[in-house]
Amino acid sequence: MVTRFPDQPGFTGFDAPMRVEADLMDVEVSQGAIPENLEGTYYRVVADFQWPPKVDGDFFFNGDGMVMSFRFSGGHADFKSRYVRTPRFVAQAKERRALFGAYRNPYTDDPSVAGMSRGLANTNVFWHGGKLLSSKEDSPPMMIDPDTLETIGEHTFDGALTSQTSTAHPKIDPRTGEMVFFGFAAKGETTPDIAYYEADSRGVVIHETWLRAPYSSMVHDFAVTQNFVVFPIIPLTSDLERLKAGGPHYAWDPHKDVYLGVLPRKGNGADIRWYRGSNRFASHIMGAHDDGRHIFIDTPVSESNFFPFFPDLSGAGYEAEKAKGYLSRWTIDTMGESNGFTETKIARYPGEFPRMDDRRETLPYNWGVLALSDVPEQESPGRGFRWISSIDLNTGHSQIYYPGHDCSVAEPLFVPAHDNAEEREGYVFVVIGRHEEMRSDLVILDAAHLDAPPVATLKMPLRIRSGLHGNWVSATELARERTA
Amino acid sequence: MVTRFPDQPGFTGFDAPMRVEADLMDVEVSQGAIPENLEGTYYRVVADFQWPPKVDGDFFFNGDGMVMSFRFSGGHADFKSRYVRTPRFVAQAKERRALFGAYRNPYTDDPSVAGMSRGLANTNVFWHGGKLLSSKEDSPPMMIDPDTLETIGEHTFDGALTSQTSTAHPKIDPRTGEMVFFGFAAKGETTPDIAYYEADSRGVVIHETWLRAPYSSMVHDFAVTQNFVVFPIIPLTSDLERLKAGGPHYAWDPHKDVYLGVLPRKGNGADIRWYRGSNRFASHIMGAHDDGRHIFIDTPVSESNFFPFFPDLSGAGYEAEKAKGYLSRWTIDTMGESNGFTETKIARYPGEFPRMDDRRETLPYNWGVLALSDVPEQESPGRGFRWISSIDLNTGHSQIYYPGHDCSVAEPLFVPAHDNAEEREGYVFVVIGRHEEMRSDLVILDAAHLDAPPVATLKMPLRIRSGLHGNWVSATELARERTA
Repeated sequence: MVTRFPDQPGFTGFDAPMRVEADLMDVEVSQGAIPENLEGTYYRVVADFQWPPKVDGDFFFNGDGMVMSFRFSGGHADFKSRYVRTPRFVAQAKERRALFGAYRNPYTDDPSVAGMSRGLANTNVFWHGGKLLSSKEDSPPMMIDPDTLETIGEHTFDGALTSQTSTAHPKIDPRTGEMVFFGFAAKGETTPDIAYYEADSRGVVIHETWLRAPYSSMVHDFAVTQNFVVFPIIPLTSDLERLKAGGPHYAWDPHKDVYLGVLPRKGNGADIRWYRGSNRFASHIMGAHDDGRHIFIDTPVSESNFFPFFPDLSGAGYEAEKAKGYLSRWTIDTMGESNGFTETKIARYPGEFPRMDDRRETLPYNWGVLALSDVPEQESPGRGFRWISSIDLNTGHSQIYYPGHDCSVAEPLFVPAHDNAEEREGYVFVVIGRHEEMRSDLVILDAAHLDAPPVATLKMPLRIRSGLHGNWVSATELARERTA
Repeated sequence: MVTRFPDQPGFTGFDAPMRVEADLMDVEVSQGAIPENLEGTYYRVVADFQWPPKVDGDFFFNGDGMVMSFRFSGGHADFKSRYVRTPRFVAQAKERRALFGAYRNPYTDDPSVAGMSRGLANTNVFWHGGKLLSSKEDSPPMMIDPDTLETIGEHTFDGALTSQTSTAHPKIDPRTGEMVFFGFAAKGETTPDIAYYEADSRGVVIHETWLRAPYSSMVHDFAVTQNFVVFPIIPLTSDLERLKAGGPHYAWDPHKDVYLGVLPRKGNGADIRWYRGSNRFASHIMGAHDDGRHIFIDTPVSESNFFPFFPDLSGAGYEAEKAKGYLSRWTIDTMGESNGFTETKIARYPGEFPRMDDRRETLPYNWGVLALSDVPEQESPGRGFRWISSIDLNTGHSQIYYPGHDCSVAEPLFVPAHDNAEEREGYVFVVIGRHEEMRSDLVILDAAHLDAPPVATLKMPLRIRSGLHGNWVSATELARERTA
């Protein structure tokens, strides 16, 4: 079989698969200088098809996980990228072709791989309990060597992961070092079951409970505060019969309500309380906190389905305007009579990939950053995310970084200036796609002055796939928590 | 020190350093198909500055050697590239900056590296005696693992390499498996001493003799036939005082004659006979053979210096027209009275990087291939090599491959279709730079029908530096000769 990619969107031009496992010593600094005392690693994962897809119309959610690292020390940065050797990748490498079919649809797979994990480890890569984990929400995470990026193996928390799946968006409680996480479709594809876990700072599971959602859907992210966990049920619904018929895993149901399931931290699934709201879309959560009674959740909210590759059950086409999400605050009163929640719009411009200073996870916070798709005052050709904006959550004041014509931006990441830095004292890292030059930059911005010229521009000689999530691990943290 | 490359020709756009050590499984075949029974590896080396140059106006001859391989099996190809860990590379990696200065001028180096080998292993990579060797003519070759491309170490033929240098253009005698090679500047930079060696098929040196050239110059290639070796002395001269003054290693002397030094195979240096001709330039040799009395040498010959980065001692500027080389045949009568030689032009179009079927090395042959810089009938914007041409040496008939607008071509390579293939029965491999797309292709052409559509186009997601030389090692050869 000839290795040839389809001439279709997502597989051509700047979006073509890159597929290169790279080592690059001393990334060129084409502008500015890397802060001398920046010591740590920016881990990131992108989806990058190693083999041409088995099915027509495939999209990047179904690409193989490629973990990458920028390791900073003494004013220099080294880059590395490696495919995650999931069981799926290894099986396909033997045959040098795709054996797994459509996104989260095992009924489209080659019979030879029946029952094998379909995980791609392509969504997020994070550090906890001395382990670097790369994960996708349909499977257990994969453990990765933090220096070589070689795959160590599937991680099941010593068998404590009783769910078939594990979220790509765990939260780490900075006060305790606990990792709060969950699996949805926990009893198998399209099941409404959710398993909620907490692991202590060493990565040992210390809490497990199960619950059932009002309906089966993509539960991509969740909110964790000091006292609560909240599971958002958004009507991007899944259905087993549709899968069996070879249909898409998710479809947007414009007639279903949103549900926010609230449990106390380390609570029992039987005690979950559902707060209901009208039909709308939300996915990533910037941050969440509580005051003992009220829960505050900040997330971009749009009128309708954000993902053009998931159909609308009503038959309606994709509506780009309705898909635009505006950062908003949801407030739940856990002691009130109402089973509803309120929503207040925070941001002027539509955006996604919201992040904050992760050291404020679960706690009150003042500042966040996200990628914008539209800045009406600033003309910029093209589609997709093209600006980065910070936002002061107290004043609403925002600063905007624009990388220039014909560029795309990836998820921004806050990186503290040093181990004891204050909130907002540090940098915003963002990978920029320079489409005309068919290569990428890693731009380092001053978090407090996002609109100032970059602190440094790391000029990559190759394209970095527009991908998903990543995290910063300081050298101190890595050394302290690393397992033998 | 910030890692930043100069904004100068050779360091920008398509010519920017690539610096990526890559692994790429299953290179995409965007057109055609890789012949299923093609089993072997195309090794190639390019010059790719890992650190910004220490001196102004540096050029690619002084870049670090990056060895690459395309390994073919069962209709698939895997790509790999690795920097050669020369002593120089290792020393610079520790400091994360260039410590070595101008091309072949140790007087411009950082004092900390005085006496250390300046070798870059960036010119050719070849297989002999079960060893893969990457070499530059100013130093001993470096041994490379043929599978991982990791550097094993400097190779001195178990100490038998008494010269300080070793050519990047050894010839392997297909009848005996002997490797015929030499070192020039063998007693140190700018010395006119040449050491001539032969190693048996296991790589053991079985012959050594020394001679002195009429003057010190670049002796980049040489001719080897069944009965003779010929050392061409071309007036790209070197001079120790110029080096000490910080000047360029080579300069063109338009007033000096060319000398061809002839020795019998395994002869004594004292017996060398010099054949003299008027001032002209030549470098690479396509092939050479003898009929017992006459020696025939095929090489592109130009009126003047080919290299724009080496100055003219007369003060004349670079003359692009006079620099164009036309494949020509030199004939030496070893039994005649004359101390001259004749020259007959073979090719209509100027070109370089001549190659033939290496299995005909030292023997009569009928066919060769080279890169062309001008095809007057075919308009093509840009400069440099942009066509590949085969040539039938009996009929003069040529076939031309043109990869299209805005492309550059590298050295072509003949690859036999199988272990027992006839001359011209096989493929021509050539790396194409697709400048607008900022990436390269490896194109596989039918050697007998160079002007037909390619057999296969291997689409690379990254740029391959326009580099120097490479060779094919069949799987049979690799398995048979590999050392334990």
